[in-house]
Amino acid sequence: MNVTRINASSKTYYVYVGEGLRTKVEEFLPKTYSSILIVTDNLVAGHYLEDIEHNFDNERVYTAIIENGEESKSIEMFHQLQTKAIDCGLDRKSLIVALGGGVVGDLAGFVAATYMRGIDFIQMPTTILAHDSSVGGKVAINHEKGKNLIGNFYSPAAVIYDVDTLKSLNQKEFRSGYAELVKEALIADGTFFNTLMSVNLSDLNNTTIADHINQGITIKAEVVEADEREAGIRKYLNFGHTFGHALEALQGYHGFSHGEAVAVGLLFAFQVSEETFSIRLPFERLFSWLRSNGYPLQLPELDSKHMLSKMKLDKKTEGKKVQMVLLQSIAQPITVEISDDDLLRHIELFKKTLSGRF
Amino acid sequence: MNVTRINASSKTYYVYVGEGLRTKVEEFLPKTYSSILIVTDNLVAGHYLEDIEHNFDNERVYTAIIENGEESKSIEMFHQLQTKAIDCGLDRKSLIVALGGGVVGDLAGFVAATYMRGIDFIQMPTTILAHDSSVGGKVAINHEKGKNLIGNFYSPAAVIYDVDTLKSLNQKEFRSGYAELVKEALIADGTFFNTLMSVNLSDLNNTTIADHINQGITIKAEVVEADEREAGIRKYLNFGHTFGHALEALQGYHGFSHGEAVAVGLLFAFQVSEETFSIRLPFERLFSWLRSNGYPLQLPELDSKHMLSKMKLDKKTEGKKVQMVLLQSIAQPITVEISDDDLLRHIELFKKTLSGRF
Ligand SMILES: NC(=O)c1ccc[n+]([C@@H]2O[C@H](COP(=O)([O-])OP(=O)(O)OC[C@H]3O[C@@H](n4cnc5c(N)ncnc54)[C@H](O)[C@@H]3O)[C@@H](O)[C@H]2O)c1
Ligand SMILES: NC(=O)c1ccc[n+]([C@@H]2O[C@H](COP(=O)([O-])OP(=O)(O)OC[C@H]3O[C@@H](n4cnc5c(N)ncnc54)[C@H](O)[C@@H]3O)[C@@H](O)[C@H]2O)c1
Ligand SMILES: [Zn+2]
Ligand SMILES: [Zn+2]
Repeated sequence: MNVTRINASSKTYYVYVGEGLRTKVEEFLPKTYSSILIVTDNLVAGHYLEDIEHNFDNERVYTAIIENGEESKSIEMFHQLQTKAIDCGLDRKSLIVALGGGVVGDLAGFVAATYMRGIDFIQMPTTILAHDSSVGGKVAINHEKGKNLIGNFYSPAAVIYDVDTLKSLNQKEFRSGYAELVKEALIADGTFFNTLMSVNLSDLNNTTIADHINQGITIKAEVVEADEREAGIRKYLNFGHTFGHALEALQGYHGFSHGEAVAVGLLFAFQVSEETFSIRLPFERLFSWLRSNGYPLQLPELDSKHMLSKMKLDKKTEGKKVQMVLLQSIAQPITVEISDDDLLRHIELFKKTLSGRF
Repeated sequence: MNVTRINASSKTYYVYVGEGLRTKVEEFLPKTYSSILIVTDNLVAGHYLEDIEHNFDNERVYTAIIENGEESKSIEMFHQLQTKAIDCGLDRKSLIVALGGGVVGDLAGFVAATYMRGIDFIQMPTTILAHDSSVGGKVAINHEKGKNLIGNFYSPAAVIYDVDTLKSLNQKEFRSGYAELVKEALIADGTFFNTLMSVNLSDLNNTTIADHINQGITIKAEVVEADEREAGIRKYLNFGHTFGHALEALQGYHGFSHGEAVAVGLLFAFQVSEETFSIRLPFERLFSWLRSNGYPLQLPELDSKHMLSKMKLDKKTEGKKVQMVLLQSIAQPITVEISDDDLLRHIELFKKTLSGRF
């Protein structure tokens, strides 16, 4: 088991990564709670809910099962979970357990952050991508007009990550999670990037995965400790996300998973970085790694102007122009303001670059 | 003008109380903002919106007018304001201005706390009661099943309190606000309590009101600085609220205003305190002050068991029993756990006490 300590401004908490942790959750709780509400989705519930439920030495353990998928990060589901918490009699000394991927973590975390103005919650990530979403204290739901627009900065009481649960993930979810690991490597650690580029996603064991997850969490932890509320360098974690989020939004969150969209966004950010700084980045290497690991790299029909307007709605945009994270070199990120004209040109060019390869 | 500094854990902010401040708001803003959304209700808008709008040296000033009244503190209105903020293009460097009473402050504050995970907002209280709600960083909306169940601790960037705006308040709102001042006096300052008991609410000038408000804010500030997240002594501010909230809820937030319900709750808390500690409190003095100032003191038909279950839903209840703030003497509050049986008995007795006086 690996333990990482996270010093958030409001509290210090620990991230536990290891095998079989789901059957000894109580050992990692910072204190006892008057009641516990486990929030999970229907897929994860089928695999692991029973293991978790039987885990707590507490008479008042309740469960809320949401439908899997991004659509559940809605204000309606938020409201339903609040109602559930009230009906179960949760009080200020109660705990919410977010058992699942980033959707469950973001949603249940936001419920915990706002229920009676904030009760404790723990993250129990069950996807690789959730190594990212479970650490750093960002919780949110979506608005019809954009992703993650309604939320809080609210740290969990602990993150308990049982890597055994990852074995039931399909390849699409593996790809999705590894895209965020590649992103973290790119903004902070060239050696880790090289390691990842030598990996075959269909041929990984638990120990290797845990190692990659721990490296990702270490990078994420350093960044968020330095800038919890995203006033500065935390923005680097959005590397690849300007294009990625817009692609997701245009797809109505179908087709590309979050990480798959980010993977394409990494390539886009490479292209813009190369031109902006007249440098070379390992575009080819990343492209072929993504391709050989089955990432979808063929864009759907995209109207460039529509794409641009989606980018501008992305919440990292301040005032009028789009702020994009670029690389000056590997592990040297920087935030740059890009004009609409330049962005449009880049979108056009990028569409050509990708389509020319198929 | 009087300035009070509030040291919250996340930020330090200032409360400005004075005459005519609404026409020089920009002087009190801690920084400049990319755009501004003023949230107010239809009644307040009629009186003061224009003064405020013309105040900002910013091209991007938008307005959202909600319907007045507690019903607006709903998840639907919350959602509508989020949509409005998005449609106006508010970004992370934008400001929300809450112009109005506690309803506008709580609602707009919660929108600000969650829009893009939190943007700045200022409180511009226009009721006396809002001296309480605007200071201390509690923001919330109601759930159908209980008041203020969904919210955050989120401090404003500043509180700008123009006492001139209070002249358009009706007597009901005066009473409502002064009940919270009496509450603050009771938990912290016997001299202030004596001052208030000698006041006639229909015969007050701006200077006197400003003085009372400043004393109330000073007490509130001391309490919340010592215990921002209500782990301990902040609960004292709920003096009178166990019964008050339940009464409000049973009335469906009609009839009694918040402060009027709290006023009745103060008497109830007096009664429970007197019996619990075998002491005498100035029940008669408070009762006759309330009566002579027109507070409604005749209870509607109340089912005691129903009342009890409403009290138990109140979010200050932990685990099973009701926690109530009592007085050991004036300015000596304490939190006490009261059994259901005792509470029921007290409710019955209290109903008799009040009805016997009419
Ligand atoms: N808060 C943050 O900092 C942050 C960071 C990155 C992403 N996110 C958010 O995370 C979400 C994406 O996370 P995600 O990719 O984990 O999505 P997800 O939660 O939707 O999980 C993906 C799919 O995998 C299934 N699943 C989860 N665990 C499983 C398991 N162990 N076995 C089998 N199936 C399993 C789920 O049911 C779902 O269908 C997005 O909403 C994104 O906005 C948040
Ligand atoms: N956040 C906190 O710490 C806290 C503390 C106490 C109360 N509250 C909340 O505050 C709310 C009650 O506040 P309130 O009593 O100010 O209610 P309110 O905002 O509903 O205002 C009362 C009425 O007065 C009107 N009004 C406001 N200003 C006016 C003016 N200057 N002239 C004429 N009319 C005016 C309003 O339109 C409304 O009809 C409740 O929702 C309560 O839960 C919050
Ligand atoms: Zn991401
Ligand atoms: Zn009150």
